[in-house]
Amino acid sequence: MLPYQTLISIEKENRIPVYQQLAHQLAGLIQRGVIKPGSFLPASRVMAGTLQLHRKTIVAAYEELSSMDWVVNLPRKGVMVASNLPSIKPRTFKSKVPVNSYGADTGFCFDDMPEIGYATPGKEKFKLVVNDGFPDTRLAPVNEWAQAMRQFLAQPGYAAALSYGSSQGNMHLRRAMVPHLADTRGLSITTDHVLMTRGAQMSIYLAAAMLIKPGDAVIVGSPGYFLAELCFEQLGAKLIRVPVDAGGIDVAAVAALCKTRKIKMLYIIPHHHHPTTVTLSAERRMELLQLIRKYRLAVIEDDYDYDFHYASAPILPLASADHGGNVIYIGSFSKSLALSIRCGFMIAPAGFIEQATRLRKLIDIRGDNLTEEVMAMLLQNGTVDRHIKKTNKLYSERRDVLCRELESHLGDAVEFTKPNGGMAVWVRFKKKYPLKVLGAKAAKKGLLINSDLPYSYGKEPTNGLRMGFASLNTAELKETVQILQSCL
Amino acid sequence: MLPYQTLISIEKENRIPVYQQLAHQLAGLIQRGVIKPGSFLPASRVMAGTLQLHRKTIVAAYEELSSMDWVVNLPRKGVMVASNLPSIKPRTFKSKVPVNSYGADTGFCFDDMPEIGYATPGKEKFKLVVNDGFPDTRLAPVNEWAQAMRQFLAQPGYAAALSYGSSQGNMHLRRAMVPHLADTRGLSITTDHVLMTRGAQMSIYLAAAMLIKPGDAVIVGSPGYFLAELCFEQLGAKLIRVPVDAGGIDVAAVAALCKTRKIKMLYIIPHHHHPTTVTLSAERRMELLQLIRKYRLAVIEDDYDYDFHYASAPILPLASADHGGNVIYIGSFSKSLALSIRCGFMIAPAGFIEQATRLRKLIDIRGDNLTEEVMAMLLQNGTVDRHIKKTNKLYSERRDVLCRELESHLGDAVEFTKPNGGMAVWVRFKKKYPLKVLGAKAAKKGLLINSDLPYSYGKEPTNGLRMGFASLNTAELKETVQILQSCL
Repeated sequence: MLPYQTLISIEKENRIPVYQQLAHQLAGLIQRGVIKPGSFLPASRVMAGTLQLHRKTIVAAYEELSSMDWVVNLPRKGVMVASNLPSIKPRTFKSKVPVNSYGADTGFCFDDMPEIGYATPGKEKFKLVVNDGFPDTRLAPVNEWAQAMRQFLAQPGYAAALSYGSSQGNMHLRRAMVPHLADTRGLSITTDHVLMTRGAQMSIYLAAAMLIKPGDAVIVGSPGYFLAELCFEQLGAKLIRVPVDAGGIDVAAVAALCKTRKIKMLYIIPHHHHPTTVTLSAERRMELLQLIRKYRLAVIEDDYDYDFHYASAPILPLASADHGGNVIYIGSFSKSLALSIRCGFMIAPAGFIEQATRLRKLIDIRGDNLTEEVMAMLLQNGTVDRHIKKTNKLYSERRDVLCRELESHLGDAVEFTKPNGGMAVWVRFKKKYPLKVLGAKAAKKGLLINSDLPYSYGKEPTNGLRMGFASLNTAELKETVQILQSCL
Repeated sequence: MLPYQTLISIEKENRIPVYQQLAHQLAGLIQRGVIKPGSFLPASRVMAGTLQLHRKTIVAAYEELSSMDWVVNLPRKGVMVASNLPSIKPRTFKSKVPVNSYGADTGFCFDDMPEIGYATPGKEKFKLVVNDGFPDTRLAPVNEWAQAMRQFLAQPGYAAALSYGSSQGNMHLRRAMVPHLADTRGLSITTDHVLMTRGAQMSIYLAAAMLIKPGDAVIVGSPGYFLAELCFEQLGAKLIRVPVDAGGIDVAAVAALCKTRKIKMLYIIPHHHHPTTVTLSAERRMELLQLIRKYRLAVIEDDYDYDFHYASAPILPLASADHGGNVIYIGSFSKSLALSIRCGFMIAPAGFIEQATRLRKLIDIRGDNLTEEVMAMLLQNGTVDRHIKKTNKLYSERRDVLCRELESHLGDAVEFTKPNGGMAVWVRFKKKYPLKVLGAKAAKKGLLINSDLPYSYGKEPTNGLRMGFASLNTAELKETVQILQSCL
């Protein structure tokens, strides 16, 4: 008889019933060839004695094995391991631990993707975190959210809403999007032009995956948004970087490129370019619209930051002008609401949305219908508007505080321009204060800042840092700058 | 002077302030070339008279335009449209409606994807819907969910949890997954082997996108799961269909293929194959594990239905056996909990998970951290276990009811085998009752059923229908079969 007392290890405190543990382990031994096909398992009484278990437990385990076809119950002969199993060379008896088949890597052929991201607090504790420009979640309308959810779940039809969902997004939400985008962005659309996604990034991926074939030329701004660029490269695009200056992307350079070669797509952030926060000038905007129409140039207009503007009303998106259906407009509620929910959208011609919806289904079936219903309610009952208005005022003050503190305490060590919107100031540190060194010193004093890695992907490092001000209050912003000053 | 009273249309009830509406519309006219670069806007008093607005409103609108660089305020001369704008041939004056640039399709070059999906109730009302095998959302633990959410939001650290999230999934949730998968599926893993996704479909897409290069050969079962097949094809795979019979996929055929050509990947649903609900036999399971090790064959094991089994304990997944790290295991909570939340997972070697996480970030940044926290709580407080246990009992009864009703009322018109788990019975209707005709008749009687389109993608139509029983109670199941009987 095999040394079952060594091979089998039962945990009585385990939530799985003992008979099942036994059956699983016996099945494992059969699979690994330790127990041979055609051999007999010990009689239940014998096994019970060996393992110090009740006989009924053994019988139950054998029945379990039998129902799974691992063993056959032969009347008057006993329990035989199925003989039609291919015989396997038995492996060592020594290991009592279950096989961990995920211990080693397999080395499947996949391309290494670079890992670039923002610094995040891990196990270490930080007093302060300067992020890339995220909202203050302490202000998130969680009560309004929870209330709308309760209200929705109290409706008689709630169960049906949990069952069905559309890959294109909940119809109530898409209906609420039409006036919302008309009022805030001057977009004239119908529900057919709206695809609800998990956020701006999913919208970017879907649009890019629809447009880009390997080898296609895609224009991006330099410096630019690394997560979009990585996404295009992953899809096989060849990136062409066009300089971004104080007036936004160099449209004359884009025009020159369009004239000389086939350009598949332009990715642009006309409002608060990432990372430099500049806004595309009116002049370039018009020139660009002409180019778009002339070359039927596909454009992804990423307007992630539109809701936050402090100087004046925001400039309307390219998508609101006459672009002949070539502009795919992308935005998100994740930043505007500061909730952890991720909810974004894509606006495009109906045919494009139809195809993008099919692709989305292959990637993510659909969104969370409950979240989308609640989001529709918050748009309709004014919560979204009110929250954006309230935080605009506050973030504008925080921007002023950060800029004042930077000016008075970091002085000549940095260069920056006060942005007219968004949630971050683009701060370039002088070469003699490398961000890497600064970051290490700051970390010791409880302040976490990003490296310039995300901002310099594919470019010369600029020693620049997007200093997110929206998520820090006045005292926190002051302390942040004080710590940075002490690290120079 | 231009006919501004015709060109401009102000809505006083609109949520956007009047001066902004005016500024936006003037900007639009400038952009469209109606108002020429270098020309002067009417004096504010004149414009106020023309539009019947207060003069202050006009002044505010002009200031707005000036802040956006559309116009320049020239002392003693007036408000001039910026002259550096490229001149554009003006378009018709007639349209008062804002330009809808999304009216026509652009015909970007993207490949048409086939639209295949389940029938869903649209505007029509249906008394009864037979779905593909979805849970009963009337039983979803929404109260437990809402309570856990309230509890989480009442914690002092909730705001930080809304800010930060990991692309690989919340650490509390990944920690809770380790014992959950060990207890229920015999998987021996650590948190490094877990990637939380939006559902099984996202896990499939990510794994496939990592493995498949255009032209790669991928083995799938026939008949098989259309959404996985569409996904592989979209990624450029060449599908090789291997027959699925009562014992699951024909492993000997898989072996023959592996011997003769390079196979990139095998997609398999060993437990309740979709659509036929058969389970891979123990013998084939072992042969397959041998193949996997011998050829280092990458396998996506889709175990979407694992939690529901009525005859005996479920057969442990391939992933729990010795596969040398080649099995990528995929599952979901969306079906188990019947909530609208979409939450799935991928289990794979740590290096694979690391790369898949990077790809996920490009597609979806990360999941909803609040949802993931709540999910972790429900796993830890036993809600998930209890819900699965409770619904298993009920769904088992519903399966019996449906099979009994089919047998006694549809008799010779159908063929089916009672499945030992899952949420659907695979029912093949005799050729003389084409599903298309049957579906149309049933719809008139208030019953919505799927066509066989999703089940016959890429194959000969089988006139088969997955009849989901889990979401219908006894009375509903009886009525469903009665309606079908009356349509024969």
